[in-house]
Amino acid sequence: MPRWQILFLFSLIFLSSSTSNASVNDFCVADLKGPDSPSGYTCKIPAMVTVSDFVFSGLAKGGNTTNIISAAVTPAFVAQFPGVNGLGISMARLDLAPGGVIPFHTHPGASEILVVTRGIIKAGFVSSANSVYLKTLHKGEVMVFPQGLLHFQVNVAKIHSNAFVSFSSASPGLQILDFALFANDLPSELVAQTTFLDLATIKKLKGVLGGTG
Amino acid sequence: MPRWQILFLFSLIFLSSSTSNASVNDFCVADLKGPDSPSGYTCKIPAMVTVSDFVFSGLAKGGNTTNIISAAVTPAFVAQFPGVNGLGISMARLDLAPGGVIPFHTHPGASEILVVTRGIIKAGFVSSANSVYLKTLHKGEVMVFPQGLLHFQVNVAKIHSNAFVSFSSASPGLQILDFALFANDLPSELVAQTTFLDLATIKKLKGVLGGTG
Amino acid sequence: MPRWQILFLFSLIFLSSSTSNASVNDFCVADLKGPDSPSGYTCKIPAMVTVSDFVFSGLAKGGNTTNIISAAVTPAFVAQFPGVNGLGISMARLDLAPGGVIPFHTHPGASEILVVTRGIIKAGFVSSANSVYLKTLHKGEVMVFPQGLLHFQVNVAKIHSNAFVSFSSASPGLQILDFALFANDLPSELVAQTTFLDLATIKKLKGVLGGTG
Amino acid sequence: MPRWQILFLFSLIFLSSSTSNASVNDFCVADLKGPDSPSGYTCKIPAMVTVSDFVFSGLAKGGNTTNIISAAVTPAFVAQFPGVNGLGISMARLDLAPGGVIPFHTHPGASEILVVTRGIIKAGFVSSANSVYLKTLHKGEVMVFPQGLLHFQVNVAKIHSNAFVSFSSASPGLQILDFALFANDLPSELVAQTTFLDLATIKKLKGVLGGTG
Amino acid sequence: MPRWQILFLFSLIFLSSSTSNASVNDFCVADLKGPDSPSGYTCKIPAMVTVSDFVFSGLAKGGNTTNIISAAVTPAFVAQFPGVNGLGISMARLDLAPGGVIPFHTHPGASEILVVTRGIIKAGFVSSANSVYLKTLHKGEVMVFPQGLLHFQVNVAKIHSNAFVSFSSASPGLQILDFALFANDLPSELVAQTTFLDLATIKKLKGVLGGTG
Amino acid sequence: MPRWQILFLFSLIFLSSSTSNASVNDFCVADLKGPDSPSGYTCKIPAMVTVSDFVFSGLAKGGNTTNIISAAVTPAFVAQFPGVNGLGISMARLDLAPGGVIPFHTHPGASEILVVTRGIIKAGFVSSANSVYLKTLHKGEVMVFPQGLLHFQVNVAKIHSNAFVSFSSASPGLQILDFALFANDLPSELVAQTTFLDLATIKKLKGVLGGTG
Repeated sequence: MPRWQILFLFSLIFLSSSTSNASVNDFCVADLKGPDSPSGYTCKIPAMVTVSDFVFSGLAKGGNTTNIISAAVTPAFVAQFPGVNGLGISMARLDLAPGGVIPFHTHPGASEILVVTRGIIKAGFVSSANSVYLKTLHKGEVMVFPQGLLHFQVNVAKIHSNAFVSFSSASPGLQILDFALFANDLPSELVAQTTFLDLATIKKLKGVLGGTG
Repeated sequence: MPRWQILFLFSLIFLSSSTSNASVNDFCVADLKGPDSPSGYTCKIPAMVTVSDFVFSGLAKGGNTTNIISAAVTPAFVAQFPGVNGLGISMARLDLAPGGVIPFHTHPGASEILVVTRGIIKAGFVSSANSVYLKTLHKGEVMVFPQGLLHFQVNVAKIHSNAFVSFSSASPGLQILDFALFANDLPSELVAQTTFLDLATIKKLKGVLGGTG
Repeated sequence: MPRWQILFLFSLIFLSSSTSNASVNDFCVADLKGPDSPSGYTCKIPAMVTVSDFVFSGLAKGGNTTNIISAAVTPAFVAQFPGVNGLGISMARLDLAPGGVIPFHTHPGASEILVVTRGIIKAGFVSSANSVYLKTLHKGEVMVFPQGLLHFQVNVAKIHSNAFVSFSSASPGLQILDFALFANDLPSELVAQTTFLDLATIKKLKGVLGGTG
Repeated sequence: MPRWQILFLFSLIFLSSSTSNASVNDFCVADLKGPDSPSGYTCKIPAMVTVSDFVFSGLAKGGNTTNIISAAVTPAFVAQFPGVNGLGISMARLDLAPGGVIPFHTHPGASEILVVTRGIIKAGFVSSANSVYLKTLHKGEVMVFPQGLLHFQVNVAKIHSNAFVSFSSASPGLQILDFALFANDLPSELVAQTTFLDLATIKKLKGVLGGTG
Repeated sequence: MPRWQILFLFSLIFLSSSTSNASVNDFCVADLKGPDSPSGYTCKIPAMVTVSDFVFSGLAKGGNTTNIISAAVTPAFVAQFPGVNGLGISMARLDLAPGGVIPFHTHPGASEILVVTRGIIKAGFVSSANSVYLKTLHKGEVMVFPQGLLHFQVNVAKIHSNAFVSFSSASPGLQILDFALFANDLPSELVAQTTFLDLATIKKLKGVLGGTG
Repeated sequence: MPRWQILFLFSLIFLSSSTSNASVNDFCVADLKGPDSPSGYTCKIPAMVTVSDFVFSGLAKGGNTTNIISAAVTPAFVAQFPGVNGLGISMARLDLAPGGVIPFHTHPGASEILVVTRGIIKAGFVSSANSVYLKTLHKGEVMVFPQGLLHFQVNVAKIHSNAFVSFSSASPGLQILDFALFANDLPSELVAQTTFLDLATIKKLKGVLGGTG
């Protein structure tokens, strides 16, 4: 088969749809300096994309758990891992020292699936119907947390526990309940009115978590 | 123009796409007794659909506000108003007596837009970045609450206040924070561990809201 | 608990996902001067977002109804209310003087839900199967109009009537039938050919509505 | 390589995800007798699916154009072609005799792309901004009509013209303007009020198109 | 009716939603020089859009079939036809000389619907359950290929065959199996390991198709 | 606070949206015996749902790797793990003995994110533009594979390697290239025509993989 036929093949079949960078967009690696949009960041120029954009090493090491919750969440969301932009998926690593807790939180924009890779984790979520779904998970066990619902994870092993969690969005969001209530400038009276908690409790937790007002 | 031509017109152009009920599905009124699916309920048979399926009168009267929050939420979600099934929209009515409060809550599956129709309402939400967005809204003013974020509404008028809220889903869900924490059987110790609240506060609120454990 | 632990807590758990502006996108307030995309406008820089972006006061007053339809539609779409960008929701206010009519129209990109807040409104829509769904709605009654279908609203009270309508998109679009046919430069012969209307009628309505050709 | 290894391979890698019919759903051929849902019909049992479900022969012949519009639309929507269920695509064939017209219509749930395969077709659509987009298309030319907008096609050749049109939905819907206004029981007074047309015109067209009231 | 009333009508009802270019986005014609996003390209300024943006003439002529596969695919994807941006639809033309073949390929982001317009085409796809769906299609016959599955088309007529194919995305992507395996720099050993093919076969095909490594 | 007020609170605020099972659908656990739909299976009755529906233990143990690829994929897709239905997420476990390979394959309906939990894995994918993205991943490293593209994983450690992979769909599908070509009844001549492979190679691989024809 002569060489010119091969070139023909390419120019007629394949390159016809790829002569411009514009023509192929299997993916859209985030240009984090470019504008964001409701569907995600605008894309890095295809010619600049390399395999490094699709690989993230930041979960290889756990976060520091020397803190009041004895735990850490290390995200691989689009802000840390631009390759997931627009792909409807992202990941995070949970590290829980003995006694460690990921307190009640929600992901406003994604469901979560968790797999325990070390130790034992008690996890739970609460539904709109106010049912509690609670389970002690051992190594290799998987639990799914439906989108937007309050949930938590607690280390119930005597050793450090670990899990990898994946999300159905490149940017799942993370709203930690205590921070939303006690770690900002929402006036204490308003917190009291909208949570049934008493002012003394609120002020104490604002003190602990750095809230004002 | 002879009558047969009209019949022809129908049979050839229009009825060709509507001879079976199956062929037109501009809408899918929920058959609440049929199975639910991730996209909503299965549809009522088209021939059984009437205008009543698209009209809901349940928001004409406010809910009873003689309760501890001096407020009521009356939903027109798919469960109450089958006509919205699959249309990505639903509604609710807020009634707040003087001092009334819709406590901190989230809608796991929808954004919300609110318009005040009587009185004055202070509303707020907290973002994942822990910023507080707080505003006092007068009659005719509109506020939007992004999907899945904690928010609340407080009547700050001396009179009864009202609002209509719409959602970007036929089934937005509703998770009231205090109910999730204190009105079910989630063990008090676990609530304490995952919220930073002390046991005494938790047990008191469980007593008020009917929680056990 | 020492202060450094609190800082630790933040830096390890929460700020780990928010050190850059990029990391949290619960919302995407439209930068109306920036580029638009199929999913909505690109986002205002998060640091510039304030509560004002989520509040719209333009529906507090009704539109002027001194016109041939004795009615007005005041939109709170993304172009007027940038906070709804990407949230799949928007709103509008209808004002109908006695005899007022919102003529036949469609929203190409959204379903609509309407609540009457004053007066009495007769509303209707026509389905692809050519069924007519027609209802007289009183104060507090709600009606839903499925996406893309022709519909209208008529004031049948002796007083001014009002309604708030919400849409399942930040940018629902609005195509008023008479304007599409008679208020542009579509040649009259072509209108006649594609509507069955006679040329005299078309030319008269073009005269009234400002069409040419 | 021994046969048992092959069986192993299948049972461990591939069949592990297909031992039940449930496990593979690349497609969901409509069971037209089963329930419909907002995302489409429920699926035919996979074991019953054959290649015939993915093939449709009904567009091989044109519709009868001996009617008042001298034209016909032959749909291959999900109701006619169950294989497209859930795939976000469908098709139709247009036949236009000399002088033939597909009158003003919308597809509430889909964008449309048209390719002329015979003759010459003048096509147009009107946008929400009331701009007219009008073009005379020759054989092989393609035009796209954005979702939900009023559009039409007119044969401007002296011969029979043909086109294939595809839609971005398995069930695009079809609302023909004249039928919506004049071929049902919508009261003539209401048509007049909501279209600016005079009663005489309306009654005449109701007569032609079979409307009552 | 006085002219000022018409102006009133426009300013109050219609123009209220179109005074800025931002307010109407029935469509989003791609600005191919602007940034791409996960939902498609950013939009051309509405004032610059003309009917030409919605029309594509590049499918009127077939591609050159003087190549080793005796076939050509001419795409009308967003990169060639900016008007389809964001509309969830696009098209391509297939030309197959006698003996022509469109070899095994996938579209990672879209389902495909094909209509034969000349000749006879044997087409087939393979499902995840490893079933083969194979059919010989004559003029006017339609076949649908579910998203992401391997499929092919072969000319089985003695004459040139043609088809138009439409996709459920403006940017369906195109991955030709042989090019993915043999026309890039993927090391031959790795191809062997991941395909069961022997090195000699791989090196021969790399030679034919221009691969290295 | 009297008990009746608490009951009032529930009946007016919360239970108003949950008196019927229909009213809350944060999730839709698959009823695998019920009908499937394009959006997933119909839902198990909410009253029958327990925490077990959201937990999957099948990934705790690896699959048997005593087979020709020295590897195994153990899925936790909706067919195995009904709790993920409709949540846009699922998972699988990869086990690769020394020399183990997950051969070239695609997931037609999902993107994939992989984290190595043991050993060293060389992974790669090929884009529509025919670029190869290839990387050797160590423990804790993450790689993302965009939807529908051909990819593979090879164990390059001397020990058993493991990874967990998550998908952006509850039912990602799995099409293994060699099985699609050589393990079914697609006629060998057709495989040859559509792959450029010679008949001898095809027949040999059909022999190995169990294909006929």
